[in-house]
Amino acid sequence: MDQRLDLITLGVRDVAAAAAFYESVGFERRHDLGTIVFLPTTGTALALYGWEALAADTGLPALGEGFRGVTLAMNLDSAADVDRTFADWVAAGATAVRAPEAKEWGGHSGYVADPDGHLWEIAHNPSRALMRIDEHGRLRLTPPVTR
Amino acid sequence: MDQRLDLITLGVRDVAAAAAFYESVGFERRHDLGTIVFLPTTGTALALYGWEALAADTGLPALGEGFRGVTLAMNLDSAADVDRTFADWVAAGATAVRAPEAKEWGGHSGYVADPDGHLWEIAHNPSRALMRIDEHGRLRLTPPVTR
Repeated sequence: MDQRLDLITLGVRDVAAAAAFYESVGFERRHDLGTIVFLPTTGTALALYGWEALAADTGLPALGEGFRGVTLAMNLDSAADVDRTFADWVAAGATAVRAPEAKEWGGHSGYVADPDGHLWEIAHNPSRALMRIDEHGRLRLTPPVTR
Repeated sequence: MDQRLDLITLGVRDVAAAAAFYESVGFERRHDLGTIVFLPTTGTALALYGWEALAADTGLPALGEGFRGVTLAMNLDSAADVDRTFADWVAAGATAVRAPEAKEWGGHSGYVADPDGHLWEIAHNPSRALMRIDEHGRLRLTPPVTR
């Protein structure tokens, strides 16, 4: 058993529309098979797949409104970058869920929902105690600290 | 705007219990702040945070039962590895949602739910047309194919 997290699949109402949305906020539509689209990221790759088809693949009923217990996050270089990216996502069709604001953990962040309700936190974290962005733009958790 | 996906936060009912579960299936509890735990993966890092606290952080009501529209996936080296890992996760307290089976896309996969209902697909994909695992154990989407 190891630490693999290889793919995140988001259930979406319209695969083509969802792919167009993610392209419009800066992602690349790497493989588009019609029923499923794969997009690279700085971390785990994303897949976009029909909500009903994905539910059927798991064998579960296609329920689930309200908070779904998952947030995806992007970590930017400044509070100004957060505000700008938040506005860009909303201009591209995302829903403004919570406007960026100063957080008690020292950062600046807000939440948008993509057109299918998947939540993204757009954040700036000035601390390097727990994590930093490496030279490839990937978030790295720092080594454990003895406290 | 770029392709950052830096952190995936899962809402959980009991942060300590969830962290113990992920340790028991092979992940590392890198930073444990009590209210939130950070775990490295081969891709995007995972965070475990209280379901109600995460809902409150987004500003949304803490609803959401049934299928939540998100699956996480790990891609293993063989069908036998899939069966073994599936059994290991269930032995560690995960729910067997769909037993591993041959899939129409040519692979072998099944679904487990972690103790908070987050779905993981445990899969083997023999094709290298769309993706392959690199020397660091990370899934890489292959370059686009002209069709």
